[in-house]
Amino acid sequence: MQYETKQRSILKAISWRTWATITTAVIVFIFTGEFALAITVGLFEVIAKMGLYFFHERLWQKIRFGKKEVPSFVLWFTGLPCSGKKAVADKVYQELLKDHLKVERLDSNDVRPLFPETGFAPEEVNLHVKRAGHLCAMLQKNGVIVVASFVSPYAQSRNFARSVANNFVEVYMKSTVEACEKRDEKGHYAKARRGDYQHFPGVDAAYDVPEQAEITVDVDHVSTENAVKQITDYLRKNFLKNS
Amino acid sequence: MQYETKQRSILKAISWRTWATITTAVIVFIFTGEFALAITVGLFEVIAKMGLYFFHERLWQKIRFGKKEVPSFVLWFTGLPCSGKKAVADKVYQELLKDHLKVERLDSNDVRPLFPETGFAPEEVNLHVKRAGHLCAMLQKNGVIVVASFVSPYAQSRNFARSVANNFVEVYMKSTVEACEKRDEKGHYAKARRGDYQHFPGVDAAYDVPEQAEITVDVDHVSTENAVKQITDYLRKNFLKNS
Repeated sequence: MQYETKQRSILKAISWRTWATITTAVIVFIFTGEFALAITVGLFEVIAKMGLYFFHERLWQKIRFGKKEVPSFVLWFTGLPCSGKKAVADKVYQELLKDHLKVERLDSNDVRPLFPETGFAPEEVNLHVKRAGHLCAMLQKNGVIVVASFVSPYAQSRNFARSVANNFVEVYMKSTVEACEKRDEKGHYAKARRGDYQHFPGVDAAYDVPEQAEITVDVDHVSTENAVKQITDYLRKNFLKNS
Repeated sequence: MQYETKQRSILKAISWRTWATITTAVIVFIFTGEFALAITVGLFEVIAKMGLYFFHERLWQKIRFGKKEVPSFVLWFTGLPCSGKKAVADKVYQELLKDHLKVERLDSNDVRPLFPETGFAPEEVNLHVKRAGHLCAMLQKNGVIVVASFVSPYAQSRNFARSVANNFVEVYMKSTVEACEKRDEKGHYAKARRGDYQHFPGVDAAYDVPEQAEITVDVDHVSTENAVKQITDYLRKNFLKNS
């Protein structure tokens, strides 16, 4: 929850008084034509109203009417391994931070160490993604914007994550297996093809294409910069109008 | 993040103008003795400054100086089973909600279903409590106050939870095994004594008494009401002075 310091109220009082007293003096001068009177009234007003303004500000701090929270949401990136989720999500996160919003960044790589026993078989991945969904929802419901990136290949657990959060925005990073494999600098696809990895989406496990993604990024034909713009434009239009 | 609606700015303009224009009219009357002039200046001021005030408010919405967040913290209840953690934590949570603060309530019973494979052997309990600690820290770092209640019998994982959060407030619910057993309506202690449960703190597993608890509640000699007061007094003094 936010509050405003006394220093802020003092500065607002001075800022307001500067404009307002000039206006008063001008009005008095227009109606009387007396320059000295306009100045005298102005001077007394400065003293009387600066204090009044300060107390008015402090009083309004206690009144909740018209104070709103910027709506929070879960921005959930899904896509094949090496489809560029992390890179785009990181940049969107940085953009949101610039607006002084409360944002948490969750990447599969950060969350997995918390559950070291979780494997990659479909039922384990579903459990992992559901936990991540719970975590996102808990943050979102407390006013925190979440930028999450998980391969999250199965519709079942993605839809669960959608169902527990409010304002769930699914970003499908659409790319072919071939394009992802070319992008793969760490050789994960090669390892999966050799059989070193099992249950690798796109190789020996399914990737369920999202059917209701709010945003689809055509990764193979769009620059990272334009992908970020596509997403932030959507967010500004739907959630961040007032901030 | 909070913002203020236009309606709030309009209402503040009207509220301010009422007081301020009366002050102007009084000042003009004092210096001129002319009642009609005081009223005329006042009327023109109402029109000119209501708009000016509105734009002044909207401008200050964009200025961040002097806007602060109420500090968030993790209030972590630890104690033997049936030491009354949940009851007191629930009431403290309700008290904090009354102040319009952002608060999340985490009880062991709510968190365990997320990790259904977690057992009760000491190493599993430590892992569970560490995860809970991570979750608390993530919420706390995003400005959410967390009221957590876990038996959390082992110093190792409690200290881990302390180390990852800022503003960690440990509440030790101090009670003897005998008193807890008397309080136990569900027969958990009896089951542990019969051997139906294993690793039950206070029966066949250790409970490490906290050595650095910020608050110790003498459960066996204090009413729930007074325990809640002891805790909320501490929080108001240390974190909630400005809210």
